[in-house]
Amino acid sequence: MLDKIDLSRKLNKENFSDMKDDLTKRLGELQRGQRDADIPVMVVFEGWEGSGKGALMNELILPLDPRGFSVYNVTDTIVSDKFYPPMYHFWKMQPPGGRMAIYNRSWYREAMDSWRLNEKDGAALIAEKMEEIRSFERQIVNGETLLIKLFLHINRSEQKKRLKRLKKNDLAQEVRDKEGLNAYKDYDDIMPVMETIIRESDRAYAPWTIVEAHDRRFATAKVLSTVARALEERLDRTNPAPVHVGQTETSDLEEKIDTPTVLSNVDLSLDIPKKEYSKKLSSLQERIREMEYALYRERRPMIVAFEGWDAAGKGGCIKRLTQKMDPRGYQVIPVGAPNDLEKKHHYLWRFWEAFPKAGHVAIFDRTWYGRVLVERIEGFCSPIEWKRAYSEINEMEKQWHDFGAVLVKFWLQIDKEEQLNRFQAREEDEDKQWKITEEDWRNREKWDQYEKAVEEMLWRTSTTYAPWTIVEANSKLHARIKVLQTVLYAGLEALRPMALSKKTEPR
Amino acid sequence: MLDKIDLSRKLNKENFSDMKDDLTKRLGELQRGQRDADIPVMVVFEGWEGSGKGALMNELILPLDPRGFSVYNVTDTIVSDKFYPPMYHFWKMQPPGGRMAIYNRSWYREAMDSWRLNEKDGAALIAEKMEEIRSFERQIVNGETLLIKLFLHINRSEQKKRLKRLKKNDLAQEVRDKEGLNAYKDYDDIMPVMETIIRESDRAYAPWTIVEAHDRRFATAKVLSTVARALEERLDRTNPAPVHVGQTETSDLEEKIDTPTVLSNVDLSLDIPKKEYSKKLSSLQERIREMEYALYRERRPMIVAFEGWDAAGKGGCIKRLTQKMDPRGYQVIPVGAPNDLEKKHHYLWRFWEAFPKAGHVAIFDRTWYGRVLVERIEGFCSPIEWKRAYSEINEMEKQWHDFGAVLVKFWLQIDKEEQLNRFQAREEDEDKQWKITEEDWRNREKWDQYEKAVEEMLWRTSTTYAPWTIVEANSKLHARIKVLQTVLYAGLEALRPMALSKKTEPR
Repeated sequence: MLDKIDLSRKLNKENFSDMKDDLTKRLGELQRGQRDADIPVMVVFEGWEGSGKGALMNELILPLDPRGFSVYNVTDTIVSDKFYPPMYHFWKMQPPGGRMAIYNRSWYREAMDSWRLNEKDGAALIAEKMEEIRSFERQIVNGETLLIKLFLHINRSEQKKRLKRLKKNDLAQEVRDKEGLNAYKDYDDIMPVMETIIRESDRAYAPWTIVEAHDRRFATAKVLSTVARALEERLDRTNPAPVHVGQTETSDLEEKIDTPTVLSNVDLSLDIPKKEYSKKLSSLQERIREMEYALYRERRPMIVAFEGWDAAGKGGCIKRLTQKMDPRGYQVIPVGAPNDLEKKHHYLWRFWEAFPKAGHVAIFDRTWYGRVLVERIEGFCSPIEWKRAYSEINEMEKQWHDFGAVLVKFWLQIDKEEQLNRFQAREEDEDKQWKITEEDWRNREKWDQYEKAVEEMLWRTSTTYAPWTIVEANSKLHARIKVLQTVLYAGLEALRPMALSKKTEPR
Repeated sequence: MLDKIDLSRKLNKENFSDMKDDLTKRLGELQRGQRDADIPVMVVFEGWEGSGKGALMNELILPLDPRGFSVYNVTDTIVSDKFYPPMYHFWKMQPPGGRMAIYNRSWYREAMDSWRLNEKDGAALIAEKMEEIRSFERQIVNGETLLIKLFLHINRSEQKKRLKRLKKNDLAQEVRDKEGLNAYKDYDDIMPVMETIIRESDRAYAPWTIVEAHDRRFATAKVLSTVARALEERLDRTNPAPVHVGQTETSDLEEKIDTPTVLSNVDLSLDIPKKEYSKKLSSLQERIREMEYALYRERRPMIVAFEGWDAAGKGGCIKRLTQKMDPRGYQVIPVGAPNDLEKKHHYLWRFWEAFPKAGHVAIFDRTWYGRVLVERIEGFCSPIEWKRAYSEINEMEKQWHDFGAVLVKFWLQIDKEEQLNRFQAREEDEDKQWKITEEDWRNREKWDQYEKAVEEMLWRTSTTYAPWTIVEANSKLHARIKVLQTVLYAGLEALRPMALSKKTEPR
């Protein structure tokens, strides 16, 4: 999940300064609009130790009328007050309609600090807290509060650099405890804690926004624009005729801030020589066949999901994957527009129905992620519906995982130019003309929209139990080998220690 | 919760026959409406062993067009199929738009049968299942399915009678397992299991309807009218202009079916001689003072909530309760219409804020239940809001309880005549005239509406951790003694074993 976030993003001084002037003016106006519309607003700052919560809060506060907001520092003393029930202080800290409350740490503090406990106690605490927190957030959002949750994200080396600098600072020594200042040493252990918490509390009614916090200018711009847009959206909804306060036209620059860029950082030059490919392919196919039998013996079902750009080579990958598999053990499920009966059901129904019997493998050529890709872009479902779909899909995959299923999800990435080449090649080749339609060209025109949707999908649904694998697919050979390797290793990993120790014989 | 349901309800032959004719006709028409509107409908039959699920399902099916519904018997084999994830079969069994699926047992089967396990395993299974079930029901209801959940309720002696009769029947012997036929022996152990499951899955989007199933005619009428009304409500919502299919005018009789009658069965003749009253009162007050100190020492907070009819004597009870208490340890919180600041917050905010510090007592003269009483009746909140409030309130009370708070909730019951007497007495007594207003008279006119709201409140929010106590209050003396006794025992119970073993000395 968090590993899918591109932390290298920056903003140059000049661009930043223009944007900030604009956002500052807009935020002031929006705040007045919020006051007049009597909307209570809560802005939560959470994130890694040293990620700059305090500094970014100050940037947010600067443009605001001080009579309209309160800042709450959620200290350890508040969180560990044993005289009141856990959520008591957060209920008290709620802003009335028309006011904004800004939280430096929040009701997440206890759960996010639970990495300091041993693993078992930590997990139990998180489970309990998530129940309380979801109840709390659901209740306040149902009660018309606008809730904005920001998570400031930095990686381990950045955190180490910052905390080491802080260690030399006397004031920081006083304010922060020693464990906090050494948190980078436990970064890798804290990561799954953060991911679980974010996943379990990322709901359509209370979504998280991840702020890439390496570059101070970029982070500031993202915080300000996230808050401004949330206010705009809410004011538009509240007022029958949308009130456009100030210059609400989103600038191109701001649009960019909002678009994560994992995909554009994928190294598409990866390739593999033809000869090496043939050798590896053959060996991988043999081993996958053995793995298929091992899964069967252990009654473990496997689900392989393919998504990717049109012409990215899904079909070719699936062909190589299944080439030597025993056809009694797997099924390929091509997913297109839903048929009449499917349309009359819940959008997830057809995927539940295709769930493989224990011990079998189901390979999906396109998947349930259509909900947050084509259905989102084409407006086949409402924003409320596709926003809800992230957690619905996570819940479904969690239930499959808990049952013992192995989940492998691929996004096949090519660039726009490569797609054009392939489209043209298809049109020129009589045998492949059927593969290219008007629709493919239309989808291509929406490349940028799809890119944004894919990025959001990748980070909101990449979970520990069902992670996405991004496949660099400009080279078909490289893509196929990576797919087969990933499937094989996921299977072996799941079967461990049984499969690796036993000699697997074909039936 | 279930103990608040009046199981003595009956319907005579003649009334039943009229009603059934009407409902049969309406259900047929509604089913056609549902088909045309493409709505998927799911009707769940759950309940005690021997409560008559099969027979009542047949009554529901009879009026329906057989081409429009499917019946699913959720057997033990389906539930224990280890080749698929737990919810797989229920996703598959979902009806498409326009069709109705009727379930004899359902996704609740495994959880409700968990009384057969040991207590710890049972509790763990229920916790896990509830998470899955809420996810499932939320997803399908968000997906536009109309979900109707019926729980057929009988008491222990009725169950015993029925199961003993079944034991003599050879066919029943074959169909049911021995444990099932002896379930009445474990009735009291099964009760908390059922209550937990119902409470944890009773949500505004998927509420339970409890069917009083002692009298076959009454139960049939309630099942048919519940389904008919749910369909009507949904069709009205779907069609911009409500389509009134057939005679949708609800008959008086049907209205009665829908109104539970716990309150009318309260024995209001209960009284206590003046002399005995004085003696008991004085002794109770002494002991309550001691209990107050014990709570303080043990840092246990206590919340005493008073609701009841106007002029039922809440004030008098509170006065006697606090008469000898140490004023440093308690606070009385009168709750009226919310003030301006409170109006700008979530409706539960002011009650969270009034939460007593650990070791203190808060006594509420009217409470958060105003949401499902006056606000419901007067339309100060929408049906969606007050329906949601039951689980919001249960969640809040659960958090208080988990923190260690002792919760005591009173409903003071008087009859309409007694209220009239007291109103008139107040008007005649110069010292008490201030106590009676125009509003009291207006509320009195809505007696029947309030009664219905109170009944629903009592069963939906009477939980193991925060049960309601109904106080027979036609006799003020009896009411006061019962209130003081209940508070005292709840406190002592919570303090056990500490308080009872230590000698409590006033400070």
